[in-house]
Amino acid sequence: MRKSGKTFASSKEMAQWLGMSPAQIRKDLSYFGEFGKQGMGYAVDDLQARLRQILHLDREWPIVIIGAGRIGSAVAAYPGFADHGFRVCALFDNDPAKIGTCIAGLRVHDVRTLPEFVRAHGVRLAMLAVPAEAAQSVAELAVSAGISAILNYAPLNLALPDHVRVENIDPALHLQHMTYYLD
Amino acid sequence: MRKSGKTFASSKEMAQWLGMSPAQIRKDLSYFGEFGKQGMGYAVDDLQARLRQILHLDREWPIVIIGAGRIGSAVAAYPGFADHGFRVCALFDNDPAKIGTCIAGLRVHDVRTLPEFVRAHGVRLAMLAVPAEAAQSVAELAVSAGISAILNYAPLNLALPDHVRVENIDPALHLQHMTYYLD
Repeated sequence: MRKSGKTFASSKEMAQWLGMSPAQIRKDLSYFGEFGKQGMGYAVDDLQARLRQILHLDREWPIVIIGAGRIGSAVAAYPGFADHGFRVCALFDNDPAKIGTCIAGLRVHDVRTLPEFVRAHGVRLAMLAVPAEAAQSVAELAVSAGISAILNYAPLNLALPDHVRVENIDPALHLQHMTYYLD
Repeated sequence: MRKSGKTFASSKEMAQWLGMSPAQIRKDLSYFGEFGKQGMGYAVDDLQARLRQILHLDREWPIVIIGAGRIGSAVAAYPGFADHGFRVCALFDNDPAKIGTCIAGLRVHDVRTLPEFVRAHGVRLAMLAVPAEAAQSVAELAVSAGISAILNYAPLNLALPDHVRVENIDPALHLQHMTYYLD
């Protein structure tokens, strides 16, 4: 929104940028209170600040990446985290050849030191990019140390306590969502 | 399901495997017709075959990956596509140093030959892993050649005709979904 240089934006404009309907945008925002001014639209700066508060993005969230293979390394190099309030602080792996090296400017630590690191830095978020067969036990290790949200790149459903949030990124599953609509 | 070696499975069992409620599973399945037998649960083989039909996974879908950088290469090496009925047939890039090389056993082609390839092989699905500034124009090129579903790894919203399905994979956005629930 900021890029557009606008002071006010209508739900119709936002709908176009986001590929949603204007009605859906108004409905979603109204769920969190009063935002827009009738006939004026939404004040961009105010809306942005309040959305950051609501989404708890008005702070910086430290993240760890567990698994320094292809996916973990690619994600570590992703440039968009800082813009969204995230800071990747370390990678973890169990491969002695990788431990102690740097990937995308980040130190690779021994996965056995994960609990200590998570506690010391108050980390709540982890991205999990380990082979499927290791994912469940590594996730449990992370959760036991205080991780409460996991972005899971391993192709399996993790069984974790209810208070732990998990989102799965699996390209095959995302493709399946779409083939349903193709004939 | 197959791994469990079971002939029948109840909605309760499936709910546990999938981290959903049994009621949701029964509701979702009932949307597509009669599946389970009262008191018996669901016949695993039959359910699997019918779900494959419904999701159009009773065939093999060829896919192209556009962008042979870190993410594109990592995705190309993902081992789970074949199990889910997908076959990655080629990578495309605009970097002369990459064109003609092999990544994860796949040939990297010149992106300018993408339309020709897509038409010749009847490809409908593409994974897009190019820099944000190139994504919109490359997506349009792909769609003009017949691509109708895009799994988008570039961190922006693509503006494409309504008949084109798009799913976005952006780790920062997925993390944002979860921070909302953390205090």
